[in-house]
Amino acid sequence: MSVQSPADYGFRQEVPEGDDRQRLVCGDCGWIHYVNPKIVVGAVIAHGEKLLICRRAIEPRKGFWTIPAGYMEERESSEQGAAREAREEACAEIRIDGLLGVYNIARISQVQLIYRAELVDGQHAPGPESLESRLVAWDEIPWTELAFPTVQWALNAWHAHRGRPLAAPDTNPPDIDPHWKSLTARQA
Amino acid sequence: MSVQSPADYGFRQEVPEGDDRQRLVCGDCGWIHYVNPKIVVGAVIAHGEKLLICRRAIEPRKGFWTIPAGYMEERESSEQGAAREAREEACAEIRIDGLLGVYNIARISQVQLIYRAELVDGQHAPGPESLESRLVAWDEIPWTELAFPTVQWALNAWHAHRGRPLAAPDTNPPDIDPHWKSLTARQA
Ligand SMILES: [Zn+2]
Ligand SMILES: [Zn+2]
Repeated sequence: MSVQSPADYGFRQEVPEGDDRQRLVCGDCGWIHYVNPKIVVGAVIAHGEKLLICRRAIEPRKGFWTIPAGYMEERESSEQGAAREAREEACAEIRIDGLLGVYNIARISQVQLIYRAELVDGQHAPGPESLESRLVAWDEIPWTELAFPTVQWALNAWHAHRGRPLAAPDTNPPDIDPHWKSLTARQA
Repeated sequence: MSVQSPADYGFRQEVPEGDDRQRLVCGDCGWIHYVNPKIVVGAVIAHGEKLLICRRAIEPRKGFWTIPAGYMEERESSEQGAAREAREEACAEIRIDGLLGVYNIARISQVQLIYRAELVDGQHAPGPESLESRLVAWDEIPWTELAFPTVQWALNAWHAHRGRPLAAPDTNPPDIDPHWKSLTARQA
């Protein structure tokens, strides 16, 4: 996802009718650009005693190490998003076990949902956004070369729960209520 | 947040340079409108043995019962957002205990983060988006008049964990790494 600044476009700040705070409104066509917090989805992926990390091929933090993670896309679940990022950044198929961490970076309006997962078949390779992918033992993690603090936090959370069931929150029930579809349609 | 349709504005669908999927692009000024999944934050709020519910004053599902919840805003944490929604919809001050549920509604690109909380002082009243606020015992919950399936799921998750510590995932550490600010600035 490229970074674009509203200041370079014809946006003005105003409070839309019925709203209670300033929003960006397109000066040309009047579209109200709601800036919603963004969701980053990712996973700490284990294979035996080793963890899958990737060296970033792109900015920010190019050359530093991360777990596979990125912006959640439309019409996917957070678990599907985490699996997609593992596929895109590390050519890895994963099996998700549960939600390992929820990290807020309020200053940049970002929420990160990081899952615990296992590498399905041991296979991995750098995707287009990675220079390198690697399975490392706990004492081989390049702590001083991690891309983001949340990578450190998630790795530590993994270590704190290793070999034990995850303390994960409730998620969607496996069989959806028959009224679900009509109800959520009205929630959109 | 009002609902606006891109079709009523001068947007066209196209794949921006360096991207891998179609996005909405403003025909007037070229702004790329990334449609990100939206985060709903809310809480199941207990006061003694009773739970706080509100009857919706607005569509969708006007007249139906819900827990306080709504879209997360910019530059707040998900916990702050859940507390703000309790204040806005039920004039309630809450103390959050942990993350109770994470629900995905992929069809409408929505992720809900529902916390477990306690009402601080027993006070509540309908805010502008509520017709009524009420503290109800478990067997007084109007199950057939709930606004959304996720309200039912969250209430059931609360009941399953009542009186016990929450199985919540890891969250931000209390003392932030000194490099945090500079690292996340580059993550924006
Ligand atoms: Zn426009
Ligand atoms: Zn425009």
